[in-house]
Amino acid sequence: MREVYVAGVGMTKFGRSEFKSQLELFGEAAMDAINESGLKPKDIQAMFLGNAQGAADEGITVGAQHACAEIGLGNIPAIRLEAACSSGTTAIINGFMWIASGFADIVLAAGTERNTASSTDNATRLMNTGPHHRYEGPTGITFPGVFGLVAHNYSHAYNIPMGELKEVMCKISQKHHHNATFNPRAQFRKELTREKYYESAMVADPLQLFDCCPMSDGSAAMVLCSKEAAQKLTDKPVQIIGIGQASAGGLITQKDYIRPIARETSAKMAYKMAGITPKDIDVIELHDCFTIAEIVAIEGLGIAEYGKGWETEAKEETALTGRIPVNPSGGLKAKGHPVGATGVAQGFEIVSQIRGNCESGRQLENVKIGLTDTMGGPLAAVGNIIYKRGW
Amino acid sequence: MREVYVAGVGMTKFGRSEFKSQLELFGEAAMDAINESGLKPKDIQAMFLGNAQGAADEGITVGAQHACAEIGLGNIPAIRLEAACSSGTTAIINGFMWIASGFADIVLAAGTERNTASSTDNATRLMNTGPHHRYEGPTGITFPGVFGLVAHNYSHAYNIPMGELKEVMCKISQKHHHNATFNPRAQFRKELTREKYYESAMVADPLQLFDCCPMSDGSAAMVLCSKEAAQKLTDKPVQIIGIGQASAGGLITQKDYIRPIARETSAKMAYKMAGITPKDIDVIELHDCFTIAEIVAIEGLGIAEYGKGWETEAKEETALTGRIPVNPSGGLKAKGHPVGATGVAQGFEIVSQIRGNCESGRQLENVKIGLTDTMGGPLAAVGNIIYKRGW
Repeated sequence: MREVYVAGVGMTKFGRSEFKSQLELFGEAAMDAINESGLKPKDIQAMFLGNAQGAADEGITVGAQHACAEIGLGNIPAIRLEAACSSGTTAIINGFMWIASGFADIVLAAGTERNTASSTDNATRLMNTGPHHRYEGPTGITFPGVFGLVAHNYSHAYNIPMGELKEVMCKISQKHHHNATFNPRAQFRKELTREKYYESAMVADPLQLFDCCPMSDGSAAMVLCSKEAAQKLTDKPVQIIGIGQASAGGLITQKDYIRPIARETSAKMAYKMAGITPKDIDVIELHDCFTIAEIVAIEGLGIAEYGKGWETEAKEETALTGRIPVNPSGGLKAKGHPVGATGVAQGFEIVSQIRGNCESGRQLENVKIGLTDTMGGPLAAVGNIIYKRGW
Repeated sequence: MREVYVAGVGMTKFGRSEFKSQLELFGEAAMDAINESGLKPKDIQAMFLGNAQGAADEGITVGAQHACAEIGLGNIPAIRLEAACSSGTTAIINGFMWIASGFADIVLAAGTERNTASSTDNATRLMNTGPHHRYEGPTGITFPGVFGLVAHNYSHAYNIPMGELKEVMCKISQKHHHNATFNPRAQFRKELTREKYYESAMVADPLQLFDCCPMSDGSAAMVLCSKEAAQKLTDKPVQIIGIGQASAGGLITQKDYIRPIARETSAKMAYKMAGITPKDIDVIELHDCFTIAEIVAIEGLGIAEYGKGWETEAKEETALTGRIPVNPSGGLKAKGHPVGATGVAQGFEIVSQIRGNCESGRQLENVKIGLTDTMGGPLAAVGNIIYKRGW
């Protein structure tokens, strides 16, 4: 299997895009990544587009093909990939395979989404298509409900009073809002006070508004290439050394919502391929679609023991200045969550951290290895990628 | 790059599925493919699902993950791929890459769709999301309109009176209905008379009802594996020796609708990789979404010279008994067209032809090399795969 490197990354500001379509957002991020790589659009040999809801939100199908035309990529192979919130991660993974196989030398992996093109009603309806369409969707369950359950299960399983757990969830939300103040591409760049957190509307008990990430507009892109190509293109090499991907069925088929089997399986695969353990990771971008999701994620990724993740967060070990910074970008909570773009945006952050390209305030020191984590659908579609500095 | 083989194939009957969802249709096809391969679901290491309209038609997102759960594939990597009518082909292509790279040894590539879950209104609306959403969709153009244009352009460019061209288009439709009488999985299994063809409703001048393929329900699946695995699993080896994929933007960016650039680019790529010329092909399954589409396709694939495809068809050289049989299965026209399944269903036919597994009537003699061809969106997403008998 050939080694695969990142040549360059690009990303739009996340937030609300009133006038630009998801194709135009893609164009911005993609051109940034291509420019950072010192390439031209015609150098790209294949394109992989993570996009979860293009047809339903904006009435765009065949979106990967239209995206190629948007920036003059030429008549290259192009494919849209959908795995709910992991769509962007799977775009990188499949781009990786095309290079690893030797079929291509330079490809573009991107993600784009314009979630605010939907009304709240339509967005809620769309989100309800993620659980099993026959056995779960009709109950009316949506993702705040699922992660409300996760919070209650966590509190019950480990005997943590909900009041204490909520204090930690508040801290996590505050951390993300704080980190995002240093990220010009983040959607929400204001500090969050404890008062504002507790005063906010209840969404699905115990999740309040500031426990929930927004659904955003935005795009991110990454140029992947062979080692030979990378040696010509960059003196800040970043290699993809670990790939993990796993799935699960609907919620009714899963035993344990606080230890999602898809994440355990995926993370194990990625660590094994990379030949490392969680202790080797310097920085993580993970799927904090809700504050409680971060707690179960750091446990699933092996950063904290099961039942101890809340303590890790309480001790602020995942802060920018902590033992293992998690979501220096501001995470889904404050950076924003354009569904199909998120996995690639996480890659943007990790690659930028490794290369020392982040804005001051959130740039970490001496980052060698970083991990990304996305979880889509009913805890059902997880993807992990491990990036490493150097040849 | 490692060699990639087909272990087994499966396919449901195409047509209208009143009660089975697209996930259940997938389950049938997938289990047939896994059984034909002498494997169990737990042997599959990754799954690729071509599905164009799952979210819009049936309210299913994260469909690849739910599909895995449907037949107990376990917590494997699973991804839905969308490239309009080429979705199924891209599922095979990406499955190919995972094996070619050495990342996996045995994977499942499948396609599924339940197009009849949509009302005609909704289906028309959905199809209208294929052209460019900002510049073409608003004109109200749909695919019968696009291919009506193709027929007029063809008639004009090569100075063929429309009456003569229509006679050939009638023959093509009759050929597919004839071939399908031998295919128990085909949707329409009745001969078509010339009278019935000409009496049918006008859809988009000059295309009448019997120039148009149906939108169907159905699924097809293929187990792909490394050479090492294939040697243990089958004594009827079929290798994938050529992969082509290419794209184009909206219709307004394309110069020539009767020589679609995406097909020319894709076919060239596939022939080059396989190291063969069109003369080496024994059988073709191609994208006859409309009768005129077959004429331009055989030209784009190099089976007929440009401007001569209609004569090739007039002389019945693409019949079961002709020089180069095209669409022995009955094609999209009579076998049916469940959008995301079509590319895999074409693979089912070619592999079955090579292995001598087709029902009598349409089984061809001594098939060594077969080609598949799908074209999706506004002539924008083409995929070609070349299959070859033997090690």
